[in-house]
Amino acid sequence: MVFCTPAKSELLAIDWGTSALRGALIDSHGTVLEERAFARGILSVAAGEFAAVFNGCFGDWARDRAASCLISGMAGSKQGWVEAAYCACPAGFDDVAARLTWVVDDTLTLPVALVPGLCCEHPSDIAGLPALPDVMRGEEVQIFGAMQITGRHDGVFVLPGTHSKWARVTHGRVTNFRTFMTGEFFALLSQQSLLARSINADAPLDEIAFCKGLALSQRAAGLLHHAFSTRTLALFGRMDGAELASYLSGLVIGEELRAQDLQPGTEVVLMGSPALTKRYTLALEARGVTARGLGAEATWSGLYALAAALKRNP
Amino acid sequence: MVFCTPAKSELLAIDWGTSALRGALIDSHGTVLEERAFARGILSVAAGEFAAVFNGCFGDWARDRAASCLISGMAGSKQGWVEAAYCACPAGFDDVAARLTWVVDDTLTLPVALVPGLCCEHPSDIAGLPALPDVMRGEEVQIFGAMQITGRHDGVFVLPGTHSKWARVTHGRVTNFRTFMTGEFFALLSQQSLLARSINADAPLDEIAFCKGLALSQRAAGLLHHAFSTRTLALFGRMDGAELASYLSGLVIGEELRAQDLQPGTEVVLMGSPALTKRYTLALEARGVTARGLGAEATWSGLYALAAALKRNP
Repeated sequence: MVFCTPAKSELLAIDWGTSALRGALIDSHGTVLEERAFARGILSVAAGEFAAVFNGCFGDWARDRAASCLISGMAGSKQGWVEAAYCACPAGFDDVAARLTWVVDDTLTLPVALVPGLCCEHPSDIAGLPALPDVMRGEEVQIFGAMQITGRHDGVFVLPGTHSKWARVTHGRVTNFRTFMTGEFFALLSQQSLLARSINADAPLDEIAFCKGLALSQRAAGLLHHAFSTRTLALFGRMDGAELASYLSGLVIGEELRAQDLQPGTEVVLMGSPALTKRYTLALEARGVTARGLGAEATWSGLYALAAALKRNP
Repeated sequence: MVFCTPAKSELLAIDWGTSALRGALIDSHGTVLEERAFARGILSVAAGEFAAVFNGCFGDWARDRAASCLISGMAGSKQGWVEAAYCACPAGFDDVAARLTWVVDDTLTLPVALVPGLCCEHPSDIAGLPALPDVMRGEEVQIFGAMQITGRHDGVFVLPGTHSKWARVTHGRVTNFRTFMTGEFFALLSQQSLLARSINADAPLDEIAFCKGLALSQRAAGLLHHAFSTRTLALFGRMDGAELASYLSGLVIGEELRAQDLQPGTEVVLMGSPALTKRYTLALEARGVTARGLGAEATWSGLYALAAALKRNP
């Protein structure tokens, strides 16, 4: 452990995902002072090179300003820096804070810990099929951060993305969650499938076309069938490529929402990029559900709260 | 038109699809004498080169043995040899026979016609969303052939594949059909998605794992969620890569069946490769439905019947 001068009082908070590496310097009051982002997701880092990449990206902050560092996301997976075993649901803030994995590496100039992800089990009622595990890494920090920001400790927390997460929170603990491969399905369909040639993938959101896809997605024929209409509507000249990009997005996001047990009149907490939360807000509104939207600040709030808890219970 | 000697009495029947080109010589009694297959689907043929590919693959048969040639499949699409406009449903054998598109090309040594595909409309009850077209090319010939072989002129005809078709036939006419992108979804998920690394794609069918996927697919959470369990079951060591390939196949095919209004105790006609009809037979049986399976012979029967109708009504 290094000697911490009073000047080194800040937290280095890092979200190290599959494709991106983001960091923030947070002062002792929880204020974000500076942020940095790099295209150095764990897929771009060879085994054994994580410390070097960390020092390359954040070495100055680590040496001169930060007293400690917490890292959430895929850096704690088997393919990451050091594996931080999943914390089983129901899991709350204290469970995660108690299960940090500290990195041992001589080149580090401050204590660095990886935050564990969460896992849960969906019991199977099918003969011979074991319980189905589900996992998240990084989203748990966003959920804890969202609780800090909103003061809500019960309800549904939604994190859209490549692999969207729908988490149920009770008394501040994540009791259960489900992953939906919505973003990955959309990327495959819009870039790699037959439908790619009918779509203008660069077009901005067309809300009307998006909502048409949303509405259709609630019908029984399902995504495997509905997706094909992206091709035939183009073939018969009934929608253009810009409309069809939003229409297909509505079909896929709507399919994710079709699987949810949503009660009209309720509110969910929604975290993600502005482009995605906009789409999910529209989709939730179509189901009579209000979305309270949060962005990247949830990650920094969650990591700051974990660091504060460590100071209280070192 | 060429002079047809008595020796040139056979039919050259061709199924020219996106990725494959298959042909058969059929005698005047409907017996298939010889078959050929080439990896010369229309995607591999440049515009203007179709006649040359045709002559290269079938020139000897065309010159010496066949009196005429009928071609079904994507060769009749906009990207094919000559566009044969879709025939609108409800459409029967006579409708299609009356709408052949003859090829005009000096290098041909016999009359060559392209069989039109079918189109239908799924009316939309969503504000501002036009009726959704659906299309098939090639499958209509298989359906007509299956009617010849089975004597069934009413019921559900299922053609699994990259884009599966479910057609309803009434009094010998296709009244309506739906396309499901099942084969393409499975290829994308098993080869291009995060799931690819968990799957042994070369493993033979594991019926038990396949049926587990089938059973799970009928649950409300849907394919976007269920597919992710392919990853987590591998991560937690609960299924191996060979099992997971069949499990994912069961999830995707099961999703297609979930969208069908199937009455237990009924029978459908099922046409496709043995590997696919095996899986769909299992899936249909799980829903209490019997499958009558047919293979490539349905295509040749359908094209032969069309040629015979032309002789009656030239």
